[in-house]
Amino acid sequence: MTETRGVHHIGFAVADLDEAVATYARLFAATVEHRQRIEEQGAEAVSLRVGGSRIELLAPTGEDTPIGRFLARRGPGMHHVAYEVDDVSQALRELAAAGAELVDERPRAGLFGLEVAFVHPDAVHGVLTEVVSRGSS
Amino acid sequence: MTETRGVHHIGFAVADLDEAVATYARLFAATVEHRQRIEEQGAEAVSLRVGGSRIELLAPTGEDTPIGRFLARRGPGMHHVAYEVDDVSQALRELAAAGAELVDERPRAGLFGLEVAFVHPDAVHGVLTEVVSRGSS
Repeated sequence: MTETRGVHHIGFAVADLDEAVATYARLFAATVEHRQRIEEQGAEAVSLRVGGSRIELLAPTGEDTPIGRFLARRGPGMHHVAYEVDDVSQALRELAAAGAELVDERPRAGLFGLEVAFVHPDAVHGVLTEVVSRGSS
Repeated sequence: MTETRGVHHIGFAVADLDEAVATYARLFAATVEHRQRIEEQGAEAVSLRVGGSRIELLAPTGEDTPIGRFLARRGPGMHHVAYEVDDVSQALRELAAAGAELVDERPRAGLFGLEVAFVHPDAVHGVLTEVVSRGSS
């Protein structure tokens, strides 16, 4: 068991990043917090504030990318949920001890300077689940 | 455009409610806030606190129910996101004025005493989106 501070962000897969940012601004007064393109992951991402919460929009840079394949298979929509923890390494140890199958055995650098790791959706009733910490920066 | 306070909860569809509650307690120290069975919607739901956030687990009472059909089509996983607003009626007027297609034209009674309405996923890049307020209770 790992203690979390709660949801850090909810990740949505979208086909058109600019159009999705505009939709969230128009409907829910969302404001852009960060934007980052990561060539090696084949994705471009925008972090948005919606009220006191955060959502992350993820668009593929091409079809043969993780988000591109997700869109081809399921269409745009909810992609993952991220919980904020104090220490991703410790959270991974606790989750493994609780029997959870992990995607990442060790923390890795995520978007926007975060330290992140993913838990396998099979361990969390089909929900791709991320744990994040703000890292040392 | 409607101002929201942020995410009220994230809704997950699950096949076995007790097992899912136990998983979230075991992995993420989640605690049960409410539990409610609604025969006319064919669902049983549990509201969980995870750190400072809230998730809602939804299980079907039978196969021919909205959640039962969702599970048959997509499997368990992320189902909807709900934003908290001060006034659902006003939010619906603002969302309609911003061109969003609505599932509910008027607020209706939701789970756990909330006043709720759903926006069509086609209006929000594939994300089934709910607006909720704590109602008059």
